[in-house]
Amino acid sequence: MSVYMNNAATTWPKPEPVARAMYDFLASGGANLARGSASRRDLETMDLVGDVRERLARFFGGHEKGDPRYVTFSLNVTEALNVIFRGFLRPGMAVVTTSMEHNAVVRPLRRLEEEGTSLTILPCDPRGRLDPSLLRERLREGADLFVLSHASNLCGTVQDLEAVAEICRDASVPLVVDAAQTAGLLPLDAAALDVAALCFTGHKGLMGPQGTGGIVWRPDFARACRPLVDGGTGSRSHEERQPDMLPDKFESGTPNLPGLAGLRAALIWLEKEGVASIRRHEEVLGSRLLEGLRALPGATLYGLEGTEGRLPVFALNLASMDNGTLAAELTDRWEIESRPGLHCAPLAHRTLGSFPQGALRLSPGYFTEEAEIDLCLEGLSELAR
Amino acid sequence: MSVYMNNAATTWPKPEPVARAMYDFLASGGANLARGSASRRDLETMDLVGDVRERLARFFGGHEKGDPRYVTFSLNVTEALNVIFRGFLRPGMAVVTTSMEHNAVVRPLRRLEEEGTSLTILPCDPRGRLDPSLLRERLREGADLFVLSHASNLCGTVQDLEAVAEICRDASVPLVVDAAQTAGLLPLDAAALDVAALCFTGHKGLMGPQGTGGIVWRPDFARACRPLVDGGTGSRSHEERQPDMLPDKFESGTPNLPGLAGLRAALIWLEKEGVASIRRHEEVLGSRLLEGLRALPGATLYGLEGTEGRLPVFALNLASMDNGTLAAELTDRWEIESRPGLHCAPLAHRTLGSFPQGALRLSPGYFTEEAEIDLCLEGLSELAR
Repeated sequence: MSVYMNNAATTWPKPEPVARAMYDFLASGGANLARGSASRRDLETMDLVGDVRERLARFFGGHEKGDPRYVTFSLNVTEALNVIFRGFLRPGMAVVTTSMEHNAVVRPLRRLEEEGTSLTILPCDPRGRLDPSLLRERLREGADLFVLSHASNLCGTVQDLEAVAEICRDASVPLVVDAAQTAGLLPLDAAALDVAALCFTGHKGLMGPQGTGGIVWRPDFARACRPLVDGGTGSRSHEERQPDMLPDKFESGTPNLPGLAGLRAALIWLEKEGVASIRRHEEVLGSRLLEGLRALPGATLYGLEGTEGRLPVFALNLASMDNGTLAAELTDRWEIESRPGLHCAPLAHRTLGSFPQGALRLSPGYFTEEAEIDLCLEGLSELAR
Repeated sequence: MSVYMNNAATTWPKPEPVARAMYDFLASGGANLARGSASRRDLETMDLVGDVRERLARFFGGHEKGDPRYVTFSLNVTEALNVIFRGFLRPGMAVVTTSMEHNAVVRPLRRLEEEGTSLTILPCDPRGRLDPSLLRERLREGADLFVLSHASNLCGTVQDLEAVAEICRDASVPLVVDAAQTAGLLPLDAAALDVAALCFTGHKGLMGPQGTGGIVWRPDFARACRPLVDGGTGSRSHEERQPDMLPDKFESGTPNLPGLAGLRAALIWLEKEGVASIRRHEEVLGSRLLEGLRALPGATLYGLEGTEGRLPVFALNLASMDNGTLAAELTDRWEIESRPGLHCAPLAHRTLGSFPQGALRLSPGYFTEEAEIDLCLEGLSELAR
């Protein structure tokens, strides 16, 4: 059996009911959404999709007391971010973000910059933290949007979202949160923080399948954004123009229904386990791993030094070996799965000082066992020598 | 057991290996794509995605001798069409389409029209056929793109794709084919027809799960289109700009991997059964249904009168009853699943003369049994009286 240390890419294994729910949907459910004659199966599909929406609205502290209409689905969090950037930004507008962002934020903003949107990238410190006062200062000059990854996919550093949200609120600048790494691991309350759009993926901390993601919208911000994709919505079918009502405005064509069935099962599992308890368990694992990594001879650890203010996602390099070789050795000799390279985050690597060589990333998850952490440390110790 | 007559919305049931493959991917595979340390599971995921791409390139007669790079995935066919429209069209350009299109074509083109693209909608005849000479005439005036649904989702009328393709080739106008209804039912050869972009969905005739779809690209056309979504691609990760290479250019973020596992199983099933044999079987079922529908007292049938040049998708109204009530009665009394209303195709209903009341759509599929056709006709006969 392999040792899975790549939960920051996708969590694995998934809770057993997830795959089961997808199988059951296709084998016995399988009806399309709002595209049938209101048979029992049609209604079950509508209930399924409505139920996932409700659970997500509740889970993320959705606006208007968790009104499920303000949760919309997408293929993944990258698409969700693009929906917002292309839906809201126009030439002449100013968008602000940080130097710790993933290419899911950087690449679409670079393209919009070429098309005439001004882009400011606030520098984070070498631990990956944004100093909120930098943001306050920048927003004084005026801006139309601020985009922040809640936590780094590379080194796990968590930003001070409360402080950032307050600054954005004070400046009346819409705040977009990329919660790819934190959804399911840290509590999030979109309405309380007045987040304009919270973007999530289903296949990381939420424990669902790949192919799911979405946005929790603040109603006024949803109204201000154009859709990225227009098409049939199964609603207002006499009209040749996209409906303005939510969630339809942002959901054209057939959704990933088996994926949503899997995500629903994952959310039920998550509600039962509890985010706080999952977080506590991952902290124990993370501490054990961090302690061992610190003791490695010739290791450079990136990001925060302690366990505070971070997720259990660790990036390092060994003096003895390139990180690509290191990952290959761990896989070949101990069946340890990790992730070397640049993690689709070149700006973040520049910020931490690990560009262009990249780093080895280790990310244990809820189902990781202590013995696996120890095996990983043993392997690294041997390779560090 | 219900009688499923809504295969034009999504085929059902799916071949048994489809749900099984999705379950197995999540339960024992589950690694992310190009986001790990090249472990056995990472490589299996790469093989899976590469294999689906190859099968699709072969299946659709892809360009450059079926080079799999020219197949890219999306959430559904609606998104695939939007990728092309928004990626290719700019204000001042002229796009031409027909009056038989689904809102997946009409709605995005109406939006682009508002933004300055000129839109011409060629009228089809009351059977839903486009007269190719109308297209030839229109293209003489100059146009930048022609978009055609290969077959109507409403009444099954199949367009003369060969003639249309020749006209587009002669006029050097890129041809976009919406193959939502025909992929898996009619042979398609993108390279032979010189199709610039063939858009498909995975969950209809291809027999795969919802959440899958994509584009078969002609290389020069892929180069001419900007991506709809930018982000991490697991490639060229040192760059803050979207890579130009295919398929990465059009595939940002984590793909729907369980969905692709299901689609792969569906394609293997499809290759074994054979498109021609599936088509023959559906024609037999369609003829039986059509014969019975014609004999219904007070029935108005839309589209072509015979079995030639069509798919087994039938739209009708009864003089005795509104089509919404009709669908509800069929469901309540005989557990027959159909689809009433406008089928996300208001323009097509106008063309056929069934706007705004809509029609009842009946679409048997490969797994429909003759006894089910007969039950459906019995129910309709009783309701027609």
